[in-house]
Amino acid sequence: MEFTLNQIAAILQGKVEGDGDQIVNRLDKIQDGQPGGISFLANEKYEQFIYETGSTAVIVSDKFKPSKPISCSLIRVKNAYTGFTQLLEAYAQLTKTSKVGIEQPSYFDTSSTQGDGAYRAAFSYVGKNCTIGKEVKIYPHVSIGDNVKIGDHTIIHAGVKICNSTIIGSYCEIHPGAVIGSDGFGFAPQEDGSYKTIPQIGNVIIEDHVSIGANTTIDCATMGSTLIKKGAKIDNLVQIAHNVVVGEHTVIASQTGISGSSEIGNHCVIAGQAGIVGHIKIADRTTIGAKTGISRNVTTPGKTLFGLIAFDIKDFLKSYSIFKNLPQLQDRIKELEKKQ
Amino acid sequence: MEFTLNQIAAILQGKVEGDGDQIVNRLDKIQDGQPGGISFLANEKYEQFIYETGSTAVIVSDKFKPSKPISCSLIRVKNAYTGFTQLLEAYAQLTKTSKVGIEQPSYFDTSSTQGDGAYRAAFSYVGKNCTIGKEVKIYPHVSIGDNVKIGDHTIIHAGVKICNSTIIGSYCEIHPGAVIGSDGFGFAPQEDGSYKTIPQIGNVIIEDHVSIGANTTIDCATMGSTLIKKGAKIDNLVQIAHNVVVGEHTVIASQTGISGSSEIGNHCVIAGQAGIVGHIKIADRTTIGAKTGISRNVTTPGKTLFGLIAFDIKDFLKSYSIFKNLPQLQDRIKELEKKQ
Amino acid sequence: MEFTLNQIAAILQGKVEGDGDQIVNRLDKIQDGQPGGISFLANEKYEQFIYETGSTAVIVSDKFKPSKPISCSLIRVKNAYTGFTQLLEAYAQLTKTSKVGIEQPSYFDTSSTQGDGAYRAAFSYVGKNCTIGKEVKIYPHVSIGDNVKIGDHTIIHAGVKICNSTIIGSYCEIHPGAVIGSDGFGFAPQEDGSYKTIPQIGNVIIEDHVSIGANTTIDCATMGSTLIKKGAKIDNLVQIAHNVVVGEHTVIASQTGISGSSEIGNHCVIAGQAGIVGHIKIADRTTIGAKTGISRNVTTPGKTLFGLIAFDIKDFLKSYSIFKNLPQLQDRIKELEKKQ
Repeated sequence: MEFTLNQIAAILQGKVEGDGDQIVNRLDKIQDGQPGGISFLANEKYEQFIYETGSTAVIVSDKFKPSKPISCSLIRVKNAYTGFTQLLEAYAQLTKTSKVGIEQPSYFDTSSTQGDGAYRAAFSYVGKNCTIGKEVKIYPHVSIGDNVKIGDHTIIHAGVKICNSTIIGSYCEIHPGAVIGSDGFGFAPQEDGSYKTIPQIGNVIIEDHVSIGANTTIDCATMGSTLIKKGAKIDNLVQIAHNVVVGEHTVIASQTGISGSSEIGNHCVIAGQAGIVGHIKIADRTTIGAKTGISRNVTTPGKTLFGLIAFDIKDFLKSYSIFKNLPQLQDRIKELEKKQ
Repeated sequence: MEFTLNQIAAILQGKVEGDGDQIVNRLDKIQDGQPGGISFLANEKYEQFIYETGSTAVIVSDKFKPSKPISCSLIRVKNAYTGFTQLLEAYAQLTKTSKVGIEQPSYFDTSSTQGDGAYRAAFSYVGKNCTIGKEVKIYPHVSIGDNVKIGDHTIIHAGVKICNSTIIGSYCEIHPGAVIGSDGFGFAPQEDGSYKTIPQIGNVIIEDHVSIGANTTIDCATMGSTLIKKGAKIDNLVQIAHNVVVGEHTVIASQTGISGSSEIGNHCVIAGQAGIVGHIKIADRTTIGAKTGISRNVTTPGKTLFGLIAFDIKDFLKSYSIFKNLPQLQDRIKELEKKQ
Repeated sequence: MEFTLNQIAAILQGKVEGDGDQIVNRLDKIQDGQPGGISFLANEKYEQFIYETGSTAVIVSDKFKPSKPISCSLIRVKNAYTGFTQLLEAYAQLTKTSKVGIEQPSYFDTSSTQGDGAYRAAFSYVGKNCTIGKEVKIYPHVSIGDNVKIGDHTIIHAGVKICNSTIIGSYCEIHPGAVIGSDGFGFAPQEDGSYKTIPQIGNVIIEDHVSIGANTTIDCATMGSTLIKKGAKIDNLVQIAHNVVVGEHTVIASQTGISGSSEIGNHCVIAGQAGIVGHIKIADRTTIGAKTGISRNVTTPGKTLFGLIAFDIKDFLKSYSIFKNLPQLQDRIKELEKKQ
C-alpha cells in the first residue's frame, strides 16, 4: 500500500514540511530508515538519527526544532509517538483485515454458516454445524472440526487446527499452527502396566479479545470446558492442558506449560518456560518468573515467585547469591572446624 | 448424537426412573449439568449436586437412596462410575470413528493403498508407495510422504506431517500438528567454523497403541530407526530426537525433550518440561520429575529423580529446603565466626 | 532407488570384492545390516560386526585385512568413512531434490513467480507478489503469505507457514510445521488492566544456509527485522521472539527460547531448553548449557555458562556439588554450634 505524505498528514491531522506528493509504502525505525519509508522521532535520545536517516519522511512533534539541516521531509503532529502508533494500527488493520472473499478450492460443509465480510482461503476446511460470525478471516490450511462456534472479527491464521465443539469469542486472533481442542492427556493405568485412553469429551472455550500464539496447544477438557477468559494473551509454543482455566487479562509467555485442571487467576503475568503442576489455583495478579516451577496453590494475590520449586523472588535471589558462593561458605566452615 | 434415556438404559443394562423418552445429547459433570445432558453420581461427596443439577438425567447406583426430592430422571445401574465410563467410551468411539469416506479434493498417489473403512478428509495428502491399513482415519491437512506404512485402526488428526519411510502401528493416535520423521539435528563442524548438514536417512518406527501429542516432533534416525515402543503415551510439544528409543508403556508429559540416541526404558513416567541429554540409558520404571535434567545413565530401575541436574528426589528436597534457608545458615556461620 | 555394487564403486572410485551386480537399496548400520543394505566399517571397534552383518556389502578401507571369513561383499575405498558419507549425501540429495513439477490442486497467485526446477506439492499455497528462486521445493500444506522472497535451492517442508514479507535466502531448509513471521508478542497494558495489541509490522530475514527445525516459531519484528544470519542451525520447537538476531553459524538446540530484541553472537552453541531474556547481547562463541537461563549481557566471548540464572559452568558445578550435600553441611554447622 502506498500513501503520499499529504494523505498521511490528513489521517494524522498534521502538517507536511517538504514535498507532500512524495510516496511512502513502509514504516521504518528512524535509525534504519530507507527511501520510501516513514519514521518517527519522539524520544530526544534518538534526535541524532533524524540528521542521518534515509527515510523519506519523519513524524515529529509540533515543537521539534532541528539543530542541524535535515534532508528528509517532516510531518508535524501534536504527539509524534501517538501519531506513529495511529499509523501502525491503521497499517496493521489494513494488512490483516483487507482479505475478503472465498478462494477455491476450500471446503465448507453445507450445514455450517459464516457471516458477512468472510475471508476463507484456499485449502481452508470447515466441518459440520459450525457457526462463524461476521468479518472472520480464515487463512490457508486452517482446519475447523464439527460444531465449532467463532464470534465476529476473529482472525484464524494459517494452519490452525480447531477441534470439534470449540467455542471462540469475538476479536480473537489465533496465530499460525496453534491447536485448539486436542485430546487431553488422560490415561488410566491398567493392572498389566499398560494404559487405557480416558475419553476426552469436553471442549475449549475461548472468550473475547484473546490472542493464542503460534504452535501453542490447548487441550479440550476431559468433561466440561478448558476455559481461556477474556483478554488473555498467550504466546507461542505454550501448553494448556485439559480443564485448565486461564483468568481474564492474564499474559503467558512462550513455552510455558500449565498442567491439567489448574486455575490461573486474573491479571497474572507468567514469564517464559514456566511450569505449573496440575490441580492448583493461582491467585489474581500473581507474577511468575521465567523457568519457574509452581507446585502448590498461590493463595495471596499479587506475589512474585521464582525458582525451580518457586518461592518469593526476593528470598530466592538471596538464597541464589549464597548458592553461587557455596564453595567459600564451605571454606569458612572448614576454617571454623580447624580452629576448634 | 441424540439418545433417549431408554436407549441409554438398554446400553448400560439399567433401569430408568422418570420419562424414558427424554432426549440427551451430551455428557455433563453433575455440578455443571444443564438440560439435555446426562451426568453420574458415584462419589458420596458429590451427593448434594444431584438435588441441584440441571442435567436431564443422572446415572446412579442401584442402591442410591435420595435424602431429598430430585427433579431429574435417574438411570439406575450396578456401578454408576463404570456405567458412565462405558457411556464415555461409546461416545468418544462414535465421534472419532464415525467418519468414513473420501472427501474431495484429496491427494492419494496411485501407487499407494488403503484398507476398508477409510476416512480421508479434503486436503489430505498421501505420497508414493504407502500402505495404509483398515479403518484408518486421516483428517484434513495431513501430509504423508513416500513409503509410509500405517497399521489398522490408527487415527491421524488434522495437520499431522508424517515424513518418508515412517512406520506406524495399529490402534495409534497421532494428535493435530505432530511431526513424525523430520530430519535429525545433525551438523558436522567445518574448519571455517561453519556446519555441514549430516544427511539423515533413517526413519521413525511407532509400534501399536501409541499416542503422540499435538505439535510434538519426532525426528528420524540418522541411520536406522527412532523407535517408540508399544503402548507409549507422549503428550503435546514433546521433542524426541534422532535415534531415541522410548520403551513400552512409558508416559512422557508435555514439553519434555529427549536428545539424540538416548534410550528410555519400559514403564517410565517422565513429567513435563524434563530434559534428557543424548547417548544415555534410563532404566525401566524410572520416574523423572517436572523440569528435571538427566545428564547421565540411570542404571537402577524404579528410582525417582528430580532437579536441574537430577538426583534422588528425597535428597533433592532436603537440599532444596536448606537452599531456601541459606541466608539463615550464612548468619549462623557469621555468628560462629564472631564468637571465636 | 536401487544401485548395483559396481555403480556404487564407480561413484566412490573404489573396487568391488564380490558380485558387482548385486543390488542394494538402503544404507544400514553395520550392526543392524540386512540383505539389500550397504554399510561401512571405519572404526576398529566395530570390526567384529563385519563378520556377522547381514548387509549385502560393506565399504571398507583399502588397507582392511579381515581376520575371519566374511560373507558379504566389500567395496574398498581410500577412506571408508568419507566414502560412506559421500554415499549418504548422494542418497539424501536424490531423495530430497528429486521432486520436480507442480501437483494439483495447488494455489499460486498470478502476481508471484518461481524459478526453474520448481516443485510445488498439492495443497501448497503461495500468496501475492512472491519471488521464489530456482530449484525451490515446496511440500504439501506449505502456506506462503504475500510479498515473500525465497532464494535458490531452498526446501520448504510440509506444513510450514511463512507469513507476509518474510525473506529467506538460498540453500535453506525449513522443516515441517515451522512458523516464520508470526506476530511478535507485544501488548500495551491499559489503565483498566486489559492489554492492547501493538501492531507488528516488521518481518523475518533468514540468510543463506540456515536450517529451521520442525514446529519452531520465529516471530516477525515489531518494526524492522528479526534476523537469522547465514549458516545458523536451529532445532525443533525453538522460540525466536520479535527483533531477535541470531549470529552466523550459531547452533540452537531444541526447545530453547530467545526473548524479544536479544542478539546472539556468531558461532555460539546453545543447548536444549535454554532460555534467554529480552534485550540482551550474547558475545560470539558463547556456549550455553541445557536448561540454562541467561538474564544479562554476556560480554566476553568464548565463555561456557550454566544454571537457572547462569554463571560460569565450572563454578556452577562446584556450587551444585555442595548443594547436593547441604544436609551434611548443615550438620557440620550444628556440630560447631554445640561445641561452642
